[in-house]
Amino acid sequence: MALIVQKFGGTSVGTVERIEAVAERVVRHRAAGDDVVVVVSAMSGETNRLLGLANAIDPDGSARELDVLVSTGEQVTIALLAMALNKRGCAAQSFTGDQVKILTDDSHSKARILDVEHSLLNQRLGEGVVPIVAGFQGVDENNNITTLGRGGSDTTAVAIAAAIKADECQIYTDVDGVYTTDPRVEPSARKMNTITFEEMLEMASLGAKVLQIRSVEFAGKYNVPLRVLSSFEEGQGTLITYEGLNMEKPLVSGIAFNRDEARLTILGVPDQPNVAASVLAPIGKANIDIDMIIQNAVGDNTADFTFTVHRNDFARAKAILDETCAKLGAKGVQGDDHIAKISVVGVGMKSHAGVAVTMFESLGDEGINIQQISTSEIKISVLVEEKYLELAVRTLHAAFNLDKEPVQ
Amino acid sequence: MALIVQKFGGTSVGTVERIEAVAERVVRHRAAGDDVVVVVSAMSGETNRLLGLANAIDPDGSARELDVLVSTGEQVTIALLAMALNKRGCAAQSFTGDQVKILTDDSHSKARILDVEHSLLNQRLGEGVVPIVAGFQGVDENNNITTLGRGGSDTTAVAIAAAIKADECQIYTDVDGVYTTDPRVEPSARKMNTITFEEMLEMASLGAKVLQIRSVEFAGKYNVPLRVLSSFEEGQGTLITYEGLNMEKPLVSGIAFNRDEARLTILGVPDQPNVAASVLAPIGKANIDIDMIIQNAVGDNTADFTFTVHRNDFARAKAILDETCAKLGAKGVQGDDHIAKISVVGVGMKSHAGVAVTMFESLGDEGINIQQISTSEIKISVLVEEKYLELAVRTLHAAFNLDKEPVQ
Repeated sequence: MALIVQKFGGTSVGTVERIEAVAERVVRHRAAGDDVVVVVSAMSGETNRLLGLANAIDPDGSARELDVLVSTGEQVTIALLAMALNKRGCAAQSFTGDQVKILTDDSHSKARILDVEHSLLNQRLGEGVVPIVAGFQGVDENNNITTLGRGGSDTTAVAIAAAIKADECQIYTDVDGVYTTDPRVEPSARKMNTITFEEMLEMASLGAKVLQIRSVEFAGKYNVPLRVLSSFEEGQGTLITYEGLNMEKPLVSGIAFNRDEARLTILGVPDQPNVAASVLAPIGKANIDIDMIIQNAVGDNTADFTFTVHRNDFARAKAILDETCAKLGAKGVQGDDHIAKISVVGVGMKSHAGVAVTMFESLGDEGINIQQISTSEIKISVLVEEKYLELAVRTLHAAFNLDKEPVQ
Repeated sequence: MALIVQKFGGTSVGTVERIEAVAERVVRHRAAGDDVVVVVSAMSGETNRLLGLANAIDPDGSARELDVLVSTGEQVTIALLAMALNKRGCAAQSFTGDQVKILTDDSHSKARILDVEHSLLNQRLGEGVVPIVAGFQGVDENNNITTLGRGGSDTTAVAIAAAIKADECQIYTDVDGVYTTDPRVEPSARKMNTITFEEMLEMASLGAKVLQIRSVEFAGKYNVPLRVLSSFEEGQGTLITYEGLNMEKPLVSGIAFNRDEARLTILGVPDQPNVAASVLAPIGKANIDIDMIIQNAVGDNTADFTFTVHRNDFARAKAILDETCAKLGAKGVQGDDHIAKISVVGVGMKSHAGVAVTMFESLGDEGINIQQISTSEIKISVLVEEKYLELAVRTLHAAFNLDKEPVQ
C-alpha cells in the first residue's frame, strides 16, 4: 500500500502495443494495493512530426503557438492509456496540464513549474480512479498553454509526486537503472541499487543522461524519493536517495565521462579584476555553453585560463577567443578538440582525501597523461587525450572496486 | 468595417499549403478593415487517424477519453494557422475551446453548447489580434473536454458569432454556395444568393448537406447572418437570411432529393390509440433513424402506416416490422429499398396553393408514378421509384423556373 507516481517516456508509449504494456504494469500495481498516478510523454516520433508541420509554416514560429501545437502529443497519449486501463476494468481518467492545474511561469517552451494543484488528483485517488496526467505541459497564470522543454515529463512527475506527497516517483525508461559507469565501455559496470541526489546530479551532468537534471533538482528540493526503472524488464532499478539515508557510503559511486568536449586555453592574460568575465562573456554571448572552467595564476601577474566547450562549438569559440586574446594583450590561445573528460563521483570522498591520489596514481600507472584537473565537493574531473578514454574509465572502475557491491 | 467570424473546415486546412491560403484570405479581410475571428476544424484525415489509434485499443473506448483524444486535432490546426498569420505580420493567437470557455453539457461526443464566454475574444479583438479558435470542442462545467460531434465546428462558429454579436458568420467549404438542386443531376442548377433559414433547414435535412443542421438552427435562434462560401474560389456564396428580409420570395427555392431511402409499409393495423408508437418504438429502440412518416386511415377501423429509413437499415427494420405485424394482428408488411425522395422547398409556398398541383402534374406528364406524399409548411416531398430520380429532379427544376434568377 503505497502512493506512487509512475512516469513513462515516449519510447515506453511509442506504439499501441507498448501503451497496452504500460496499462498492464499499472494494473499490477493497483492489484498489489498501490495508489497510482501516471504521467506520460508523447508517443515517440509524435513531437517531431508536429514540429515538422510548424517548421513547414515558419521555422521561427511563435513559442506560444509551438506550445499549443506540441502539447497535443501528450494529450493523445493520456487518452489512449486511460482507454487501455478502462478496457482492463481499471478506473482511470486522463488530465491535461491545464485540467490538473500545473501552474508554470510564462517562458514558453522552457517553462518552470510554480505550483501543482493537488485537490483534483487527490479526489480521484480517493475514488479509486487512476489519474493519467500529460507530462511536459502546464498553463501560465493567464491560462496560456506552456511546455517545460524536452524531457520535461520527468519534472512533471516529480512535481506531482511532491504535491500529493507520494511515497515514490518512478521514472520508467529504456535502461534498467543507473550504472557505476557506461557498460558499453566497462562491461563489469554494476547497476547501483541506490545513489544520492548529489551524485546523480554530477553523473547526469557529466554524461550519464538517464534523468532530466531539472527533475533531479526538483526531487531533491522536495524530498521526493525517485526511482529509475526499465519499462521493458522487471527489476528494482536504482533509487535516488538523500545522503543521510546511507551513513556509510563508498568513497566513489561511479565514473562519468564525456567524449564530446573540446579544450581551449588562453595564456598569459594580464591578471586584473574581472579577467574571467572578459574572457567568458563573449563566448556566452555567442550562445556557446561552457562546461569546466580552470584558472591558474602563474606568478608573473598573468593568468592561464582554460575552459571546455562542446566539440561542435570549438571552431567558433576559438575564433572568439583569438579576438579576446588580441584585445586583452594575452600571450596566445591553445586548443584541443580531441580530449575527453573523466570524473569520479561520490559523496564519500567529501571526508576522505585519498580519492584524488588513487585516481591520479592509477591513471599515471597506465601512462595516461592528465591535462587538466578540476574538483568539487563530490567529484574530481580530469581532461585526458580522447584516445585514452576507455582505458581510463576501466582503470578507475577497477581502482575503486566498482564492480563489487559496496559494503553497507 | 465589419466583425466577421470565418470558419474553415477540414478540407480547407488539410495541408500546410491550404493553411497558408486560409491565412492569406484572413489577411485580406484584415486589410479591408474587418475584425475577424477564425474557427477551424482538424486537418482532414487527422480525426480518422486518431480514431484509428483509439479503435486499436478499444473500439468501445470511453466517450470522455475519445473527446480528449480527438480534440487534439483542432488544437494542431489553430496553432499552425496562428503561426501562418504571425509570419505575415498579422497578430493572431490560438485558443482551445477551454481557453475561450465554450461551455457545453456533458454529453461527450455530441455535446451541446450552453454558453460562449465573449470577454477574452472581445479583448483580443480590441487589441487588433485575430483569435483563432478550435472548432468542435468545449468544456463541461467540471472542466472535462467535450466535442460537439462531427461537423460541430460550424456550430462553434455560429455560437461565437452570436456571443460577440458578429455582423456575419462565414462558413468556408468546398462548394461555392447553396444551389437550387445538385448540379451533378441538373447542370442548369443555379447558385442562390440568399436562402431563408427555414428553407436551408429543409434543404440540408433532405440531402443538400452543405451545413451542419444544428448550426443553422443555432444561427436562426440567435439571428446570426450565415454565409456559405468556397475556400478555393472567390465569390459571394449564399447568404442565409430571415424570411422577413425578402418580402417577395419565389414559390419554390430549390429541389432536394435523397437516394439512400427505403420505404416500409405496414398494412391494416387495427386503428387504436398509440398505434404509431407501437409501430415505431421497436424501430427507434434498435437505433434506426426514421425519416418520413405517413399514416392513412382506410375506413375499416384499420390504418396503413408508412415510413422511410436509410437503405442500410432496411433489412433490420423489415425484420422488426414483421414481428410487430404479428403482434398487432396487422395485415402485412410491404417494403421497397429502391426508392428515392424528392422535395420541393420554398417559404413562398406557404401562401400559394398551386405548388402541389404543378409538382404532381409535371411529374405525371413524364410518366413518373408518385408512391407517397408528405407535406410541411414549406416543402412537399414525394417518394418515387429510384430510377426516376434524375428525371424527376430535372422536370421539377424546369417546372419552377429555377434556372432563372428570381425577380425580387
